[in-house]
Amino acid sequence: MSGKLKVEQVSGFPEWLPNMRLAEQRFISTIQKQYELFGFAPIETPAVERLEVLTAKGGMQRQIFTVGKPEADDATAELALHFDLTVPLARYVVQHADKLVFPFRRYQIQKVWRGERAQRGRFREFYQCDIDIIGRGKIDLIHDAEIPVVINSTFEALKIPPFKIFISSRKILAGLLKTQGIIPGDPSGQFVAVLRAIDKTQRDGAEKTREALVAENTPAELIPAIVDLAQCACLDDARRVLKNAKADLIGVEELAIVLRSAEKLGMPADRLGPNFTLARGLDYYTGTVYETFITGKEAWGSVCSGGRFDDLAEYFTTQRFPGVGISIGLTRLFNLLVESEYVDVSTHTPTKVLVAMQDRAKFLDDYLGIARRLRESGIPAEVYLDPDRLSDQIGYASDKGIRFALIAGEREFSLDLHDGEPVVQVKDLLHQSQEQVSEAELPKYIRRKLEEPTNL
Amino acid sequence: MSGKLKVEQVSGFPEWLPNMRLAEQRFISTIQKQYELFGFAPIETPAVERLEVLTAKGGMQRQIFTVGKPEADDATAELALHFDLTVPLARYVVQHADKLVFPFRRYQIQKVWRGERAQRGRFREFYQCDIDIIGRGKIDLIHDAEIPVVINSTFEALKIPPFKIFISSRKILAGLLKTQGIIPGDPSGQFVAVLRAIDKTQRDGAEKTREALVAENTPAELIPAIVDLAQCACLDDARRVLKNAKADLIGVEELAIVLRSAEKLGMPADRLGPNFTLARGLDYYTGTVYETFITGKEAWGSVCSGGRFDDLAEYFTTQRFPGVGISIGLTRLFNLLVESEYVDVSTHTPTKVLVAMQDRAKFLDDYLGIARRLRESGIPAEVYLDPDRLSDQIGYASDKGIRFALIAGEREFSLDLHDGEPVVQVKDLLHQSQEQVSEAELPKYIRRKLEEPTNL
Repeated sequence: MSGKLKVEQVSGFPEWLPNMRLAEQRFISTIQKQYELFGFAPIETPAVERLEVLTAKGGMQRQIFTVGKPEADDATAELALHFDLTVPLARYVVQHADKLVFPFRRYQIQKVWRGERAQRGRFREFYQCDIDIIGRGKIDLIHDAEIPVVINSTFEALKIPPFKIFISSRKILAGLLKTQGIIPGDPSGQFVAVLRAIDKTQRDGAEKTREALVAENTPAELIPAIVDLAQCACLDDARRVLKNAKADLIGVEELAIVLRSAEKLGMPADRLGPNFTLARGLDYYTGTVYETFITGKEAWGSVCSGGRFDDLAEYFTTQRFPGVGISIGLTRLFNLLVESEYVDVSTHTPTKVLVAMQDRAKFLDDYLGIARRLRESGIPAEVYLDPDRLSDQIGYASDKGIRFALIAGEREFSLDLHDGEPVVQVKDLLHQSQEQVSEAELPKYIRRKLEEPTNL
Repeated sequence: MSGKLKVEQVSGFPEWLPNMRLAEQRFISTIQKQYELFGFAPIETPAVERLEVLTAKGGMQRQIFTVGKPEADDATAELALHFDLTVPLARYVVQHADKLVFPFRRYQIQKVWRGERAQRGRFREFYQCDIDIIGRGKIDLIHDAEIPVVINSTFEALKIPPFKIFISSRKILAGLLKTQGIIPGDPSGQFVAVLRAIDKTQRDGAEKTREALVAENTPAELIPAIVDLAQCACLDDARRVLKNAKADLIGVEELAIVLRSAEKLGMPADRLGPNFTLARGLDYYTGTVYETFITGKEAWGSVCSGGRFDDLAEYFTTQRFPGVGISIGLTRLFNLLVESEYVDVSTHTPTKVLVAMQDRAKFLDDYLGIARRLRESGIPAEVYLDPDRLSDQIGYASDKGIRFALIAGEREFSLDLHDGEPVVQVKDLLHQSQEQVSEAELPKYIRRKLEEPTNL
């Protein structure tokens, strides 16, 4: 065959080498384990939904990847890749409501696709790791406090740098705006315009927010109160602003309950705090909202966000399914942590022990037996099966970041020499050391070594 | 809002309730663990490849789902969902060859998409679980023996019913056909026609194969030998047929080496055997081929298939990357095993213990503390946070298949009553029994109970 196909990455679709994928997989299974410890059950929805399901809420149309067959096919004419896991969850809950037990605690770790212009740090395919607690008809406010507790445990288990979860309630701003008749879903677009303006305070400062509000024709009576609110540092400050404006205090009182409950549920006080600039652009949140920042890496943006929605599935049913949840944007977070050297990516294989073959013809069975016993005790082990020189075999182990290489031949397997017990030479490629270990002791020895902190 | 969107499944895209997804996830992590024990490293490739990469080999065009944006966008104009994990592997190996260590042992567990007409047991979205060992330039025949050993360990760990891996080599038939000048890639299509005819012998019998060969205009001199070969039971039978036809014996001798090596590597003799009807339609195999059948469920078809290819990446590069691998069609196998009641799908949550709240106002901290200590010892635990009656709380545990419910109040937490130690009532909802356990002993007690075989 002549002309070969060019091999190139499609931009925005990340692909890792095995060392990165191993680390990403450790991340994912740590998250999964923490979510399960708190009783969240896994679900997975198809990558593909009907286009009208995905566009029901509007807003995302321009980013949707459609899916179809080259030859027209009615059944696939209107399909597309999901762009988040919340819309599929809404469809799932309605579709299977009669077979689910409520409160329905589900987690979902899947890739999502967004047809954004590819740019540094923006992916078109990425993992989201979501938890949500969905009620049928109602869901107690204490679950709003539970969500940050789960995320705290998860981030602790991931051993990522110090972080803080910021929390607010949409109802606070809603109460303030209602004093001038502005309500959510307002056809004037005022409600969303104010959300967007206040959301920028942290990055651009209060003066920019004021200018944005003026530009958006926000009623002049409201502007000072909104700007004040955005700068409040604590609940009492916010209460004062709302009282002065004769606004409803329900939002701030609910937030107070959530903060107190979270502390009772074991949330460290320094990792959760109110932030009244937090509004979140998405229009489905109706109460509590969360964003999470890595301390000192605020420029990364929020790495874990979410909130409460009074009605998850309003586009599909008249039944009410209120819920609260949060999503870790895993691919982005993982990639940033690797770039900042927070993640160990030194091994390219799960293998912990390479059994080298010094004399394949004579001792094949012995080498295979050693590997089998290591695996039986849960230690990933490979026998170097190709007929290459010993130095190449050790080179292979070293290139892949395999920690131990075992070497044994005539001398090691000779029963006369070692009190009737075969031994092996264990080369520790990480510490550049070598020890002689009896074959019977080997699995225990390796396990102990792997559990010791490495001194590098 | 009026008119609600209809909620319905897109046919061919399976979606499980949490109990099924929990079981599927156990399957996947068992497979993953076994693959890793044998030193296969994980990779993941994007769901999306360039269309020309997917169609390079031909054959699958009609089943490919293309991906695009509603508004034309050059960068996404020619993208499609992958239909297997072998083509992406080929592209990955060429693209990253200089950063990989060979032999490259990789596993890949991902969904693939095929636009087939949906029908019972045929999915358009399903999981494949692949392992492959790829060499650069060369790869020793012993790896052909290693593949069934890994699958044997994996299927044992999955605790599925008895199975047998059938093995043959493309070279056997190739040697026979070469005696009449028919070679792979023959423009007459004879080579592939014979493969397809012989592949059907097991299901339809030797007479049908003969008829198919006649219909395909296979040279008359060859037909008796092909039909004889298809009916051979052992290597010696095959050697005799080939010798009579004056055909090359390399295929049968290589197969003999693979079978002997597999036995040495620990493969039970009754789970691996030659089958000369096995040809596999796909045109990229060049040597060993495998298929796996569940004993007594042969009608399910092969649940795990693969083989050796002399050149994985010929469409992308002039470098040679020979390899050998196999793929478990997980979604189909899992679904069939569930339908045949081989899989436990009785729990709808990972939660093992529900901490009920008898007196939320007074003992909230105690309930939360109990749950926290259970989680700290790795036991998934939930506190029932909503203010519902005790009977509703127990009902929730029972509906979700949670094994234990803990009940404690004034009497249990009173230090005077229990030698200065608080206790809890542990309801075992599986065995309908109840025991009083000291709070300090609780994690150990639960762990022990979970490890005991259930007597139901």
